[in-house]
Amino acid sequence: MADDSTLVTDARARTAARRARLRAVAIERDLDAIVISNLVNVSYLTGFTGSNAALLVRPDGADVLATDGRYTTQARVQAPDLEILIERACAPALTGLAARDGALRLGYESHVVTIDGLAHLQSAAADLGSGVEPVSIQAAVETLRSIKDASEIEALREACAIADRALAGLVADGGLRADRTEREVGRDLDSRMLSLGAEAVSFETIVATGANSAIPHHRPDEAVLAVGDFVKVDFGATYAGYHSDMTRTFVLGAPAAWQRDIYELVATSQRLGREALAVGAAVVDVDAAARTPIVEAGYGPAFSHGLGHGVGLEIHEAPGLSALGAGRLEADMVVTVEPGVYLPGRGGVRIEDTLVVGTDGPDLLTLTSKELVAL
Amino acid sequence: MADDSTLVTDARARTAARRARLRAVAIERDLDAIVISNLVNVSYLTGFTGSNAALLVRPDGADVLATDGRYTTQARVQAPDLEILIERACAPALTGLAARDGALRLGYESHVVTIDGLAHLQSAAADLGSGVEPVSIQAAVETLRSIKDASEIEALREACAIADRALAGLVADGGLRADRTEREVGRDLDSRMLSLGAEAVSFETIVATGANSAIPHHRPDEAVLAVGDFVKVDFGATYAGYHSDMTRTFVLGAPAAWQRDIYELVATSQRLGREALAVGAAVVDVDAAARTPIVEAGYGPAFSHGLGHGVGLEIHEAPGLSALGAGRLEADMVVTVEPGVYLPGRGGVRIEDTLVVGTDGPDLLTLTSKELVAL
Repeated sequence: MADDSTLVTDARARTAARRARLRAVAIERDLDAIVISNLVNVSYLTGFTGSNAALLVRPDGADVLATDGRYTTQARVQAPDLEILIERACAPALTGLAARDGALRLGYESHVVTIDGLAHLQSAAADLGSGVEPVSIQAAVETLRSIKDASEIEALREACAIADRALAGLVADGGLRADRTEREVGRDLDSRMLSLGAEAVSFETIVATGANSAIPHHRPDEAVLAVGDFVKVDFGATYAGYHSDMTRTFVLGAPAAWQRDIYELVATSQRLGREALAVGAAVVDVDAAARTPIVEAGYGPAFSHGLGHGVGLEIHEAPGLSALGAGRLEADMVVTVEPGVYLPGRGGVRIEDTLVVGTDGPDLLTLTSKELVAL
Repeated sequence: MADDSTLVTDARARTAARRARLRAVAIERDLDAIVISNLVNVSYLTGFTGSNAALLVRPDGADVLATDGRYTTQARVQAPDLEILIERACAPALTGLAARDGALRLGYESHVVTIDGLAHLQSAAADLGSGVEPVSIQAAVETLRSIKDASEIEALREACAIADRALAGLVADGGLRADRTEREVGRDLDSRMLSLGAEAVSFETIVATGANSAIPHHRPDEAVLAVGDFVKVDFGATYAGYHSDMTRTFVLGAPAAWQRDIYELVATSQRLGREALAVGAAVVDVDAAARTPIVEAGYGPAFSHGLGHGVGLEIHEAPGLSALGAGRLEADMVVTVEPGVYLPGRGGVRIEDTLVVGTDGPDLLTLTSKELVAL
């Protein structure tokens, strides 16, 4: 067991290595500086987790983290290896800092920076009599984030293990029973995750019973679980900032034939999707592998969303596994595989795992059984 | 007690009235349409709460809500009075729809739409051989949202009441005691709020003990509460989508003289801030009213943030109460008043309430006592 100082040193080395990879983008594209505005990306690159921040990355390594006065102490503790600038308007302040040396070819995140935000960057430089040539780096940091390092995979493994344990406890204690409301079940599950060490829930837990289970992203309400219902539970825990994501669908009482049929169909689809997770596979092919049996069974329109998504510091991140996705899987990407079939007014099934893509096949992080459980 | 159908009718009338106010902006500024991209604004204007959506508002009232296939059923249930367009890229799809009638003078949210996002809107129109003249409506919807209607104030009152009850229960049950960790206290408080009917917590609960209390936005960690510590608790509940926000600072054991002194100073500042909440008051004057005694006592730099902020569907919204703020208070704005004094390495105090601005003086929603409590 490493002592705390080693852990801190490791964390600093990791964030420094990530900034070095982004610095390579600056050098390759001949940028004078890059300003990172996406808070999650700032956190990934620095370790700082405050709610207002931006990061300046420069070819010479003179990186600067900006945040406001609420976070002075926290920034020094979380990012002791970085120069800290205290300023409320973080990204404009960093742009002004960089523009002191004259006109600036500035990399920025065009998918994050708003129309007003870019105008603020430009006026911060103009106030110094300097000009900015904005150059989009697109989702360069999100692309870096899509490949997880060992510490990230361990955090995701623990986040998934907490979710597994919480669901097992809920089922063992009879928490999924007729006469409870969706909301009660959701709170029970949430509180189990927190007791088991989750920092927070990954997103608002979905508990959908009966006809509600046909709504892919149903918010739990006062609907009461009843015998004969599908009960779909989609939930996750965060651990060390990383999100788990898992869905299981149960039946209360003996499953009807139509319930068995669509459950088996979705389970088959989900297995084929998992088996298609190979290094080098095109994301559209992974989606197709899982979608084909559902389409062939005549339920194509009832599978109304993509197959899955990357998961990490955010619940939805690159890569997207869908018919509209682009690119190929790489080793150490962490993705969900979550086909579903939804029959409006009757019910629906989704089965979802979180897995690590690897050269020896996928590493399953969510270990709860996918056999149909009748409660 | 109104029956459910009346409540639903009321909700539809409210969202329709909000869209009518935005429609007036479209007419006044001679816009062919407005596309709303901010999800919270879409929810405010339609009642729809899915995680991917945009709204088209047109002068003739032919408004359209766009979302993707996951939310077809939910959109029909939550916004039955609106035409629904199912399309993954919501805002570009709505822009294309509006551009069918020819060149488009399009209102958009320049503080929300990214550089890439605006390019997508423009190319959606270009694909139809049409042009878009983008016209920023700035924060028109956020400005509407800053004035709360009666249903919103009642939701905020209940969210604050849940927080009051949760904190009272925590204190009564000895939950704020030496030897517990910040994280344990935070989870205890969160779970009490959920049990008392909160939909969720408003934000990650802040529990900061001892020197950590000098960090304005400290994340709870494994630090252990100890006799002699300040313990600062900043937390809230959401109810019907609305957020409460309250901070109280306690002392474990008998307070030291310096603790009494800064507590009384912050309490005085907070009272003066509350008393300055008058219809027509400039927000900078409200900030100054609370800041002056702290500056005069020599602690000016130790009050390192603004006095408060609007609160509603988001935890931070308009108006901002700070020295950098603009504008004046209006009746039925709901704001926080939360001065603090933070002494690095020693400890800090913040006292925060949520209040409704009104012609008869502010209406206090967070009712927990602000007397110094020694535990």
